[in-house]
Amino acid sequence: MTTRYVLTLAYNGSAFYGWQKQTADVPTVQSALEHALSVIAQQPIKVTAAGRTDTGVHATAQVVHFDSDANRPISAWVRGVNAHLPNDVAVLHAQAVASEFHARFDAFARRYRYVLQFAPVRSPLLVGRAGWTHYNLDINNIQAACQFLLGEHDFSSFRAAECQAKSPIKTMYSIDIQAMGDLIKLDFHANAFLHHMIRNIVGALVYVGSGRLSVNEFAELIEKRSRLDAPPTFMPDGLYFAGADYPEHFGLMRVPLPVWL
Amino acid sequence: MTTRYVLTLAYNGSAFYGWQKQTADVPTVQSALEHALSVIAQQPIKVTAAGRTDTGVHATAQVVHFDSDANRPISAWVRGVNAHLPNDVAVLHAQAVASEFHARFDAFARRYRYVLQFAPVRSPLLVGRAGWTHYNLDINNIQAACQFLLGEHDFSSFRAAECQAKSPIKTMYSIDIQAMGDLIKLDFHANAFLHHMIRNIVGALVYVGSGRLSVNEFAELIEKRSRLDAPPTFMPDGLYFAGADYPEHFGLMRVPLPVWL
Repeated sequence: MTTRYVLTLAYNGSAFYGWQKQTADVPTVQSALEHALSVIAQQPIKVTAAGRTDTGVHATAQVVHFDSDANRPISAWVRGVNAHLPNDVAVLHAQAVASEFHARFDAFARRYRYVLQFAPVRSPLLVGRAGWTHYNLDINNIQAACQFLLGEHDFSSFRAAECQAKSPIKTMYSIDIQAMGDLIKLDFHANAFLHHMIRNIVGALVYVGSGRLSVNEFAELIEKRSRLDAPPTFMPDGLYFAGADYPEHFGLMRVPLPVWL
Repeated sequence: MTTRYVLTLAYNGSAFYGWQKQTADVPTVQSALEHALSVIAQQPIKVTAAGRTDTGVHATAQVVHFDSDANRPISAWVRGVNAHLPNDVAVLHAQAVASEFHARFDAFARRYRYVLQFAPVRSPLLVGRAGWTHYNLDINNIQAACQFLLGEHDFSSFRAAECQAKSPIKTMYSIDIQAMGDLIKLDFHANAFLHHMIRNIVGALVYVGSGRLSVNEFAELIEKRSRLDAPPTFMPDGLYFAGADYPEHFGLMRVPLPVWL
């Protein structure tokens, strides 16, 4: 009997060419995971993810589903699979799920964290793990600018040219900002995100924080619905896919953001 | 005129064969730093460090001194040098210092942090950055065991065979323990440390935390002054050299531990 399973996955994206499988010799998270699952299942396994992350982007709680008729205990889908994964990817949780569950189409919201260091010298201990600017940032101005992103907007000003989304209109439910020494942590929660949307927003917020763009100009930038005058895309290093929201009735375990991130 | 300078350095030790210079083709922090300083000074520069860290061990505040008669602004010893360093090493601070200052011999105390994750699955986001055990740890027992390490002791039970220290007797001033989710952070402050002393102590503390060694047995282990019955050395991944203490009159800037570590 075929069973659908859902996995929660964490990974350090630094060594991967993003989530999505490409040609055989390009290391991606999807190909590493499908390889490990296929070894455990002793049959080819294909997975579908909640969000396809770019090169260098990490995850604390990527959600994927797959089907298998291999009868394995849940521990095999966690510890067994982890034994066949490189140490920069790990399955944190596995469970069986209703066969109609779809990791991508059933997600009604996604969460991302961006971790940003502002300091004269970039910390070697944060390379690959946080974005960095040498500018001093005014967190109050960043906070004020973020208010203009809340709610339903046409986010074309923050949309990559290659974006394949049907519509640029998305709803931002919340943006939570925490300061911790020379780090700023931004938690984005929206129904969906356009391609490069967070890295483009962070690029503009760094301009606001460093005084190169006023809060009003940031608000106008959103209204322009064009990438042309927008500040450049920020580096992927600080971006973490932090989970997706699904209807309660699927009974999924949610893996929270690690407190140490 | 020759001036003595003191630098504070941070590095991610994962890609280095430790601090100390070896043959030309072995990447070490010292050889990377001496190369970068020599480019800026346009003359060969040799450095002396407060503490020589092992392969895979990091630093938030390594202290080094060197002499140069190259007349450069302080910014050249920070930003100039950083431009010639790989991105896993950075000079955080530079200053001129009295010519009798010695980074190693004038340090009357050293500080290290060990970051330890206890979780069923090791986080890919902590690989290289934290030690890991799958055992659940009782932090109260670890705390109780640490009390026996405070003050002056013969630390032979935690001394590597290759240790070159003249005496195994050291004074532990404090051990501060913080819990943060599935992380435990241990801050060690002592006049000096034997080779592998912290990794050996952490190895034994993990035994105590997981119930494989009682607090009393830990106390007896110290008294035995022998490695023979001690638990194995723990992994270097979670170890950070966090600074050295010098007499006030040298007027050194102290770089504190990053709040996000």
